[in-house]
Amino acid sequence: MEDLQRARDLEIPVEEETSPSQTVRFRWSDLQVLGQMAQTYILAQTDDEFYMVDQHAAHERVVFERLMKNFKEGKIPQQSFLLPLSLDFPQEDVENLLAAKEDLEKMGVCVEQAGPQTLAVTSIPEVIKESGVVRALELFAEQLSRESGSFAVERAIADIFASMSCHSVVRAGQALSKEEMVSLLEQMDEFPFSSFCPHGRPVYVKKSFAQIDREFGRTL
Amino acid sequence: MEDLQRARDLEIPVEEETSPSQTVRFRWSDLQVLGQMAQTYILAQTDDEFYMVDQHAAHERVVFERLMKNFKEGKIPQQSFLLPLSLDFPQEDVENLLAAKEDLEKMGVCVEQAGPQTLAVTSIPEVIKESGVVRALELFAEQLSRESGSFAVERAIADIFASMSCHSVVRAGQALSKEEMVSLLEQMDEFPFSSFCPHGRPVYVKKSFAQIDREFGRTL
Repeated sequence: MEDLQRARDLEIPVEEETSPSQTVRFRWSDLQVLGQMAQTYILAQTDDEFYMVDQHAAHERVVFERLMKNFKEGKIPQQSFLLPLSLDFPQEDVENLLAAKEDLEKMGVCVEQAGPQTLAVTSIPEVIKESGVVRALELFAEQLSRESGSFAVERAIADIFASMSCHSVVRAGQALSKEEMVSLLEQMDEFPFSSFCPHGRPVYVKKSFAQIDREFGRTL
Repeated sequence: MEDLQRARDLEIPVEEETSPSQTVRFRWSDLQVLGQMAQTYILAQTDDEFYMVDQHAAHERVVFERLMKNFKEGKIPQQSFLLPLSLDFPQEDVENLLAAKEDLEKMGVCVEQAGPQTLAVTSIPEVIKESGVVRALELFAEQLSRESGSFAVERAIADIFASMSCHSVVRAGQALSKEEMVSLLEQMDEFPFSSFCPHGRPVYVKKSFAQIDREFGRTL
């Protein structure tokens, strides 16, 4: 359920034109990284603003946006397993997932039947982890089962991708090197800034130096 | 005028007993320094809190508290000048300052007359800069002149010390190394934490990780 909520929070980015002024206005990679707080937030600054970036939410957005972009372009880079990943499900779920085989392939996930209650996952999208696809298949099976086959795959894609993203990315509580933090911010520039506007769980919180100065009584 | 306001903000610490529980409760030097923001604030954390420390206000408190402590103990470490510092004032100010020579000495400032409109400063408190004592003498002369000699020195000491501190310490807009930030926090431990409680211009602003997590929607 948390995954569904998360998908709604993330939202599928609206196809919108980014004006040149918007694209030059802000780049995550222009932020100067100051440090990591609570092994959860990247602290950074511009010339006049202080940023806290939620490392998990930020990475999640990056992976999610990449999946959505590739999906729309009909090309999700896949990695094939040398040895297929064998996953057990209730028999009904296996049947439902196999019936949705083609839809899963569009999402970069290739499955074969390996037994009445076993699926063999032969490839997954490059940008996600095994753990991400396992949780996504469980979620997908759950939805297929609940909606008795009439499930609209298109509507579910953001949910599935959000689940994959959430379970594939850097977590809170993970120490990041300065290089890793800089790299994450750079990756955030791959997508229009507009798609990162906070709705639901915010990726970042910022405060102007002027505002901070006021809190410290530095200015009137 | 800013100096007077500042003195009131700083306040003379009340002689209070610090219970053992208070002294073990919090040490500035236990903060883990994360970085410096806007060349003005030290960013730091404990296990569960995020701190922004105003480097100027913090250093000001340290110098001010040291001056007050030494003054109360009747021993302000002085540095004597090889060549006295020569300062020009209106003749009336020179006379007033010389009349208050003894009080100035208690504050660590030794002056001699060097001319009708000139004072020679032969020593100043160790913890302050020349620029600090110049501004303090100007302020003191201004007060002596305004209160026509009936000026109560005792009442003015905090003002003078605050002025000395303010003009002697690290400013906002000055890059600090990690070592310098750690050293400043260590110096803040020389005095009871209670004397640093924010009145007027706060030395620090803190926020719990739990609060930050809530702002990011990480917890309900």
